[in-house]
Amino acid sequence: MQVVDSPSRRGIGPTLSVVGAGVVGLSVAWRAARAGWRVTLHDPSPARGASWVAGGMLAPLTEGWPGEESALALGAESLLRWPAFAAALSEAAGAPSGLGTAGTLVVGLDGADAGELVVLAEWLAARGRTVTELNRKQLHSREPALAQGIRHGLDVPGDLAVDNRVLLAALQAACAGAGVQLVAEAVTELGALDAEQVVLAAGVGSAALCPALPVRPVKGEILRLRHRAGVLPAPGTTVRGVVHGRHVYLVPRADGVVVGATQYEVGDDREVTVGGVRDLVADAEAVLPSIAEYGLTEAIAGLRPMTPDNLPLIGRIDKRTVVATGHGRNGILLAPLTADAVLAELQASPLPELAAAQPRRFA
Amino acid sequence: MQVVDSPSRRGIGPTLSVVGAGVVGLSVAWRAARAGWRVTLHDPSPARGASWVAGGMLAPLTEGWPGEESALALGAESLLRWPAFAAALSEAAGAPSGLGTAGTLVVGLDGADAGELVVLAEWLAARGRTVTELNRKQLHSREPALAQGIRHGLDVPGDLAVDNRVLLAALQAACAGAGVQLVAEAVTELGALDAEQVVLAAGVGSAALCPALPVRPVKGEILRLRHRAGVLPAPGTTVRGVVHGRHVYLVPRADGVVVGATQYEVGDDREVTVGGVRDLVADAEAVLPSIAEYGLTEAIAGLRPMTPDNLPLIGRIDKRTVVATGHGRNGILLAPLTADAVLAELQASPLPELAAAQPRRFA
Repeated sequence: MQVVDSPSRRGIGPTLSVVGAGVVGLSVAWRAARAGWRVTLHDPSPARGASWVAGGMLAPLTEGWPGEESALALGAESLLRWPAFAAALSEAAGAPSGLGTAGTLVVGLDGADAGELVVLAEWLAARGRTVTELNRKQLHSREPALAQGIRHGLDVPGDLAVDNRVLLAALQAACAGAGVQLVAEAVTELGALDAEQVVLAAGVGSAALCPALPVRPVKGEILRLRHRAGVLPAPGTTVRGVVHGRHVYLVPRADGVVVGATQYEVGDDREVTVGGVRDLVADAEAVLPSIAEYGLTEAIAGLRPMTPDNLPLIGRIDKRTVVATGHGRNGILLAPLTADAVLAELQASPLPELAAAQPRRFA
Repeated sequence: MQVVDSPSRRGIGPTLSVVGAGVVGLSVAWRAARAGWRVTLHDPSPARGASWVAGGMLAPLTEGWPGEESALALGAESLLRWPAFAAALSEAAGAPSGLGTAGTLVVGLDGADAGELVVLAEWLAARGRTVTELNRKQLHSREPALAQGIRHGLDVPGDLAVDNRVLLAALQAACAGAGVQLVAEAVTELGALDAEQVVLAAGVGSAALCPALPVRPVKGEILRLRHRAGVLPAPGTTVRGVVHGRHVYLVPRADGVVVGATQYEVGDDREVTVGGVRDLVADAEAVLPSIAEYGLTEAIAGLRPMTPDNLPLIGRIDKRTVVATGHGRNGILLAPLTADAVLAELQASPLPELAAAQPRRFA
């Protein structure tokens, strides 16, 4: 992708409206503006949707499972692009991108949970991915705060994490610096936009603007915990747990940890429930007991834009419209690849890697 | 107490500074202004201390326990004054006082919890208080949402509850209407105030202004839950539970329920902890399982001003200063009696009922 300073070109490039200022819309808007497009970004609440609620894992490996080879391929392809994306973003924003370098530990509580880890490890190893089984002693030497009873674990150095809110702030700064115009209003009809090209990146709002898109909301709750004086330090690495068959993750932040995430198919409901918090706390405590003494600074729910096959919808649907939605749990991971793919579409040279994400595949 | 319209007298009455705009300070300020004092109320965050966090129970009976006869007497005396206080407040504020008329159920989970109820019931009965033991069938007919396994309970119709935030809003409106001047700044020294008389009602901040007062902070956390469509209705009455020796309460609100309260001796710490929320949710679910499906709209901590004998400090400490602090868990319950007592002190005719609360009793 050619990168030029947009401000010098503002007023002469083609016009682009990006609908949705989550991580995907912001990434597309920033990259398009740098490529010479005159970009308008539309969102009534910029950066406050699913991206704001996210844990920020970049985890194509530990999110993987037999049968989901396409998701692994897409995720791994995007993860490869993350370091350069983060470096360019940080430079453009004059601020940190939020990307960390620590890998991921996965632990299982009971025998069945350990069996799940073995399936994952064998599947990843067969695909040439680096994954190491750890015994109890190795686990606790890596992460002393782990619950004493945990005996099964995997070291997956390839899976990273990003502080999603630091990232969003950097993307907003980069967009502003690149001359992206923000319109903080809801778009109710794509036809009402007068740009030459339109990118639909509205997450769970996408189906309302383009009913043919099979995007449904899947509610997720997370907790943000603050480390308190006198308590064991927060883990240095992302810790994922399989706790009696239920999945939990703990992603380090500068001041604590993000715990996620519940998953409910309940439509447009963004209210945190008592039961959701209870489950997250129970599972997180089973993995890392010291979090009981952390401060609970936030409990928040978001709506992930899910598709029937858990792959995103990225590509052109008509002469004027490119969609970039349906990223489910993986919007942040897939943002760099999605931005590249959308820019390629806008330049009429689609990326072959994105064939599995073709938006008309269910039609 | 003579009640006159203060605005007509403003400018001619004696001057009074009330330090602290919690439920006690607001009640004193309002009543004093109506009695003809020119009142200034000092608080950097009016109505946002322990009173804001409270559950709002007016529960001298179910808070009782053998040995705490003085607390029962004071609380019962104040509860007697609550209906008239609430009616006058509502009229003065032109708004609801928040006072409810439903009584209180107390339930015990296990055999030891049931034994605790028997001790309480016998102690209350011996003091002529109305309390009825309920069996499982009676309990569930009174409150269908109770956990099925609960077999032991008490009906205590005398204990009421008030919506603490509705109450605080009414008190603030009544103060404004009575001409109380609010100064939203911290007082660092009582000597710096130039009023003729001073009432110290600063809760846990009282000891900093008057080091001889033995008031210490005891942290308490509560949860505010919102009823959601499709879930069993919130209880119509306050439900207190003894859950394996731990106490929990659920106080109805217009839109849900307040769950409280943890209790920690940790000094000046107002952060909600993960373990506190976990305990409250576990105990509340043990009593009323349907709350798992409620929304968790708020988790908040406050600092109760506790004294060594769990009785408040109310009375004159020098020619210019009356204290009204150390109300512990019972500030809202004791507000009407405290306001009456402080007004009586200001008029140099102390109430005999307040002998047990004499502020110099530890000296």
